[in-house]
Amino acid sequence: MTTFVVTVIGRVASSLGDLERAPRQPDEGGPDAWLEFDEGVGDALADVRAGADLLVLTWLDRARRDVLRVHPRGDPQRALEGVFTTRSPDRPNPIGLHLVHVIAVDGLRVRVRSLDAVDGTPIIDVKPVLPTDIRLR
Amino acid sequence: MTTFVVTVIGRVASSLGDLERAPRQPDEGGPDAWLEFDEGVGDALADVRAGADLLVLTWLDRARRDVLRVHPRGDPQRALEGVFTTRSPDRPNPIGLHLVHVIAVDGLRVRVRSLDAVDGTPIIDVKPVLPTDIRLR
Repeated sequence: MTTFVVTVIGRVASSLGDLERAPRQPDEGGPDAWLEFDEGVGDALADVRAGADLLVLTWLDRARRDVLRVHPRGDPQRALEGVFTTRSPDRPNPIGLHLVHVIAVDGLRVRVRSLDAVDGTPIIDVKPVLPTDIRLR
Repeated sequence: MTTFVVTVIGRVASSLGDLERAPRQPDEGGPDAWLEFDEGVGDALADVRAGADLLVLTWLDRARRDVLRVHPRGDPQRALEGVFTTRSPDRPNPIGLHLVHVIAVDGLRVRVRSLDAVDGTPIIDVKPVLPTDIRLR
């Protein structure tokens, strides 16, 4: 089994502290939050500006990696579904994908609107939202 | 420095064999390709259907992880930019994000349209495209 090592580059600082209260679906939103980056990736952040939309990738370290099917939205009335067609945090590699709007940038800290990730969640990557993301709609 | 272990769950099978010829920007497209999954994640794939749009996450194992600023689109005439606002494969955690349209499903193999990833690229996650991805446009 091939593996790679993913490095934590920062953490979410949020008032959302309780996993049970975390929104199950991104359209339920979440509180505004800070992304706090490690000094070592400061240069990578250099062009992040207030007003930008970004994709933030996190590592959902409390998730289960041995779960391959879930009840959608955690509703036991719904039939089990393979996790690759759901947003369940439980999956072989528990990577979270969050579309955020940047409100402010303060050095290594980036303030974003309504992030559905609990306090302390590890950040592993940040990407721009490009026009291609719209194309399939 | 905190790290996590990411597990390869499949590979891209593509006619795109040469990194130099790989499109730099996703809007330049790529050839149709197969996603070939490991047997161990078959249950997670169970509800992937032809006609669906999915996000495929890859690990760009040929990328450089110590590069924090790049010339956008590889054009040396353009000013250096922090990688978190670019789609450069070079970044601390070289995760690729690909929006794909599923053409066919054949057991553990999923055929997708125009994928910008070279043959053999490791796959690490698959996610649905949800309406929230449109919201910020």
